[in-house]
Amino acid sequence: MTAAFFASAEDAEEAFYDAIGRADLEALMNVWADDEEIVCIHPTGERLSGPMAIRESWRAIFANNPPLTVRIKTSVSWKSLMLDVHSVVETLYLGDEPTAHGPLLATNVFQRGANGWRLLAHHVSTAADGAAESDSKAAAGSEKGRRRTLH
Amino acid sequence: MTAAFFASAEDAEEAFYDAIGRADLEALMNVWADDEEIVCIHPTGERLSGPMAIRESWRAIFANNPPLTVRIKTSVSWKSLMLDVHSVVETLYLGDEPTAHGPLLATNVFQRGANGWRLLAHHVSTAADGAAESDSKAAAGSEKGRRRTLH
Repeated sequence: MTAAFFASAEDAEEAFYDAIGRADLEALMNVWADDEEIVCIHPTGERLSGPMAIRESWRAIFANNPPLTVRIKTSVSWKSLMLDVHSVVETLYLGDEPTAHGPLLATNVFQRGANGWRLLAHHVSTAADGAAESDSKAAAGSEKGRRRTLH
Repeated sequence: MTAAFFASAEDAEEAFYDAIGRADLEALMNVWADDEEIVCIHPTGERLSGPMAIRESWRAIFANNPPLTVRIKTSVSWKSLMLDVHSVVETLYLGDEPTAHGPLLATNVFQRGANGWRLLAHHVSTAADGAAESDSKAAAGSEKGRRRTLH
């Protein structure tokens, strides 16, 4: 399989969730960085380190579940020249079920290399019921506008 | 309070967990970046965004718990000029209890700014029982040595 080139972390992230939706293990693994120390933390609390353990865990997930559809909303991202970190809220649909599972909270870490942007870490955990986000501005009426220090 | 200067993400991280150990809310908040979009995800699944919501949650944690001691083991870190991401395993001790809680899995994201390194995101979730880390090399006997692409 020819490795795809991802021009941005957003492109790599889209390919990652698209591969989940198609249960395409090769495409999924292709999004990860070529690094022995990539990390995947599942909502079950299982922490996988390295491509072999991560591949096996996703192979089992695809084998033991109906098709998964993950919709994501990126809450905030922090970009630098070589790293890009996204804090996203995932909503999960199993097979034909109309009811969503989640929300799940993910921190996705991407790295720029010779082959474009790739995934270094995918940390997912279950959100508290109905509390995917508690925002200072909503909670406390801060008058400060949105401000980003990094991009 | 004079803002401390953290010369590295490791220094900022040490100050963060030290502040937790002393239930020092001002010191804890001082580690965070001066940014409206900082994110703190607790093991409960609560996601706080912005300094006011994060401060209030830690105030409540300190008010409602015995002293907390968090020991951390950094599994892997990914560094660039402006961002530094640590994947760490936390072990939590409550008050004088000799038995540890956890392990907890954290992804800590740090940013370099004019005032040194500061915390942008702290994402913690509970590890599966007895499975803080599942490693490719242990699980599958990979012969590849350790290799880091970024530093």
